[in-house]
Amino acid sequence: MNHKMVLFTTGQIILLEAALLLLPLIAAAVYGEGCIRAFFFTILICLVCGVGLIVLCKPKNRVIYAKEGFLIVTLSWLLLSALGALPFYISREIPSYIDAFFETVSGFTTTGASILVNLEELSRGLLFWRSFTHWIGGMGVLVLMMAIVPSSGSSGRSIHIMRAEMPGPVVGKLVPRVRETAKILYIIYIVMTAAQVILMCVGGMPFFDSLLHAFGTAGTGGFGIRADSIASYSPFLQWVITVFMLLFGVNFNLYYLILIRSFRPVLRSSELWCYLGIVGISVALITGNILPLYHSIADALRHASFQVATIITTTGYATTDFNLWPQFSKGILFVLMFIGGCAGSTAGGLKVSRIMLMLGNARRDLSKMLHPRSVSVVQIDGKKADPAAVNGLSTYLTLYFLMIAVVFLILCLEPFDFETNLTAAVSCFNNVGPGFGAVGPASSYAAYSAGAKLVLSAAMLLGRLEIIPLVIAVIPSTWTKK
Amino acid sequence: MNHKMVLFTTGQIILLEAALLLLPLIAAAVYGEGCIRAFFFTILICLVCGVGLIVLCKPKNRVIYAKEGFLIVTLSWLLLSALGALPFYISREIPSYIDAFFETVSGFTTTGASILVNLEELSRGLLFWRSFTHWIGGMGVLVLMMAIVPSSGSSGRSIHIMRAEMPGPVVGKLVPRVRETAKILYIIYIVMTAAQVILMCVGGMPFFDSLLHAFGTAGTGGFGIRADSIASYSPFLQWVITVFMLLFGVNFNLYYLILIRSFRPVLRSSELWCYLGIVGISVALITGNILPLYHSIADALRHASFQVATIITTTGYATTDFNLWPQFSKGILFVLMFIGGCAGSTAGGLKVSRIMLMLGNARRDLSKMLHPRSVSVVQIDGKKADPAAVNGLSTYLTLYFLMIAVVFLILCLEPFDFETNLTAAVSCFNNVGPGFGAVGPASSYAAYSAGAKLVLSAAMLLGRLEIIPLVIAVIPSTWTKK
Repeated sequence: MNHKMVLFTTGQIILLEAALLLLPLIAAAVYGEGCIRAFFFTILICLVCGVGLIVLCKPKNRVIYAKEGFLIVTLSWLLLSALGALPFYISREIPSYIDAFFETVSGFTTTGASILVNLEELSRGLLFWRSFTHWIGGMGVLVLMMAIVPSSGSSGRSIHIMRAEMPGPVVGKLVPRVRETAKILYIIYIVMTAAQVILMCVGGMPFFDSLLHAFGTAGTGGFGIRADSIASYSPFLQWVITVFMLLFGVNFNLYYLILIRSFRPVLRSSELWCYLGIVGISVALITGNILPLYHSIADALRHASFQVATIITTTGYATTDFNLWPQFSKGILFVLMFIGGCAGSTAGGLKVSRIMLMLGNARRDLSKMLHPRSVSVVQIDGKKADPAAVNGLSTYLTLYFLMIAVVFLILCLEPFDFETNLTAAVSCFNNVGPGFGAVGPASSYAAYSAGAKLVLSAAMLLGRLEIIPLVIAVIPSTWTKK
Repeated sequence: MNHKMVLFTTGQIILLEAALLLLPLIAAAVYGEGCIRAFFFTILICLVCGVGLIVLCKPKNRVIYAKEGFLIVTLSWLLLSALGALPFYISREIPSYIDAFFETVSGFTTTGASILVNLEELSRGLLFWRSFTHWIGGMGVLVLMMAIVPSSGSSGRSIHIMRAEMPGPVVGKLVPRVRETAKILYIIYIVMTAAQVILMCVGGMPFFDSLLHAFGTAGTGGFGIRADSIASYSPFLQWVITVFMLLFGVNFNLYYLILIRSFRPVLRSSELWCYLGIVGISVALITGNILPLYHSIADALRHASFQVATIITTTGYATTDFNLWPQFSKGILFVLMFIGGCAGSTAGGLKVSRIMLMLGNARRDLSKMLHPRSVSVVQIDGKKADPAAVNGLSTYLTLYFLMIAVVFLILCLEPFDFETNLTAAVSCFNNVGPGFGAVGPASSYAAYSAGAKLVLSAAMLLGRLEIIPLVIAVIPSTWTKK
């Protein structure tokens, strides 16, 4: 166990956070807000912690294995959230530290569950930081570090970290070098975010608001700047966000393939078609179901498309209070919460490719029962699926449902009904944000107790990092030296 | 594909049903009830169908494989239910055939979900048949046939049928011959049922009522004879039922081991201890949680024990309207619905041993991530777990959650709330019976539409036969001749 390397890398990540905090500090300066003090102190604390860790834990041996990768990711995400909560707390704009921590975890994990009731009261600097955490967490902060810090991209170490931080059952490198892969991913991410900002400015949204909403969309997070989320924006802006939510829910590998003009594998990507198929069917069913509630088919289609996109990509914006929709539409949204977006995107949930692996594996097993002597393998896109990913399915499903059950049971100690507690657990675990009942899109998580908020924070981290890294980190034998 | 053998065996099963229908016919005769006519006609129809199938489909080749085993079980259970519903329908005591079918499927699958609102109006003959279906379905009607029809127990054929009908991830023969195994299981089943009848008679319950409640307990079904289920019986009787529910939720292999005085493996059965552990912890937590609602610790403990036993064994009796309990207690009961009893018992749910396999497999996977070069296997009771069972976990979980989701979505078209629809789907699929909300223990499934009742009937059959046989039966390639 290479303790020093774990702490050293974590120190680097904290320094990176200090650098990232300069952006909201600038925003606060531009708008002349008092919260600038809070950012200043937080950056100072990050510098002290980061430099301290780097100086004290300079490793002789830089080689790390999967175990260290899991630990680095776990520790980094915990510290990022703990320190990232400080601006809210120091500025007293969120007076309780646990509330600030919940909000920050919700930001980095791109969940978008909020404890803020009066969003309009928050200063612009903090609104910026809140949405910016979505953008950082969406593609992954360690992936960002690999892309920009030269030494960190040395191949031995980085693939384990990337595997631990990137969502989905299989993580592939786009190009042989991990560092180049990270760079390409971030370039695509930045270009797409910029495209959305421009389109929203064209649609009449102020630049600052466009930027924040693009952060929330790109990370599939869901933090907005108004109490009614996206409801009061024009249909054009709502459609722009719908399309971009769906785009950010697609595997980024496909965008890279488009970049290098390799279109055939994109068109043949079964995950993409499956994802679009689920979206299309859900939108059609919900549009029909909610038609009586709205004035026209166009309105019903717009609301259905937006809500399907926001839930399957686990973003969590809303253009209407879908908690008041008929049960059938709510039922579809509930199931979509589990599905999530594509692997290798910024979305949460089980991921479409994992569900395809599950179904492919089930199909293979059933055909084996009918024809015991036949030899068959699970295929994805005509290629044999990674056997490790297939074997890991049962473990992932076991831990996934076990943990949702535990979170749900703990929430049941709170004074809310069955629907609220169950959807809160499912929504936070899958990094969606809103649920139904008292945690619907028109309400917030403010009424949950401090203990429940900590449990939900853990659920969000478990969901974002796909369980395994955090579980590995709390197994005592991980920490012993070999 | 040996079509003739499938239909021939199904014919035998229908003749067995005709024979079993003699018992409620006798009950109707003893009480001089008009429903005797309905039983008479049903027996006649069964005789015609059964003899017809046997004569027309006399097979030349009696060898069958797993595929035929799945088909026999599926077809038998469907026909058993379709014909078993006739007495309710012909007597007009349940005027709708779909309602009668739902009630009979609920009986055979030992679910105990009912569409009857005024249970006290049902004739005694039909009450007997209703509870008797629990007893038949609990241990399995094909297992019964193997135990009593000499030719049916020929070894080549029977193990595939037994595997398809018996619940749990691994089905073991107690003794080398399948027929002997089936006999031993039924002898244990009969003796335990008789013991319960005697104890309840001692407790002051009339013989007829004791018999019916013992049927419902032994099959872990849950059909009672009063609208308030078990609530109006004495605490002594409630405790007797609690203990017997738990006993019938234990793997029957353990009773065989006790019979042959092999006590050590019983005491070392990790499934048994895990099952008792879950029961003990749940009872303790719920007792504490519901204490304010009841007069004394004794009352709270009795209600908590009864409800935990009724839900984990998926029986479905109730001594109190647990729908009115605090959310934490309801949350525990909801999770217990998924767990279910031990494999090789009459209980439903995922089964404790399957959950242990899931956790064991997850543990092995995690330790492999930490120590990639280590060789480790999933162990149960110190022995290597069946690799086929471990490999089948992901397929089972995939189909299990997929089907619950589909059933839930279809139910969402009905005018009920989230809690009602979700717990109805989960409860029927796991063969529990009551859910929460409008399908709580104080209500019934009567208000669901005919379509929803058919979907729920399918869910109950899928749950009882553990999915695979029914899925295999609807795959077109199963039916083609090789």
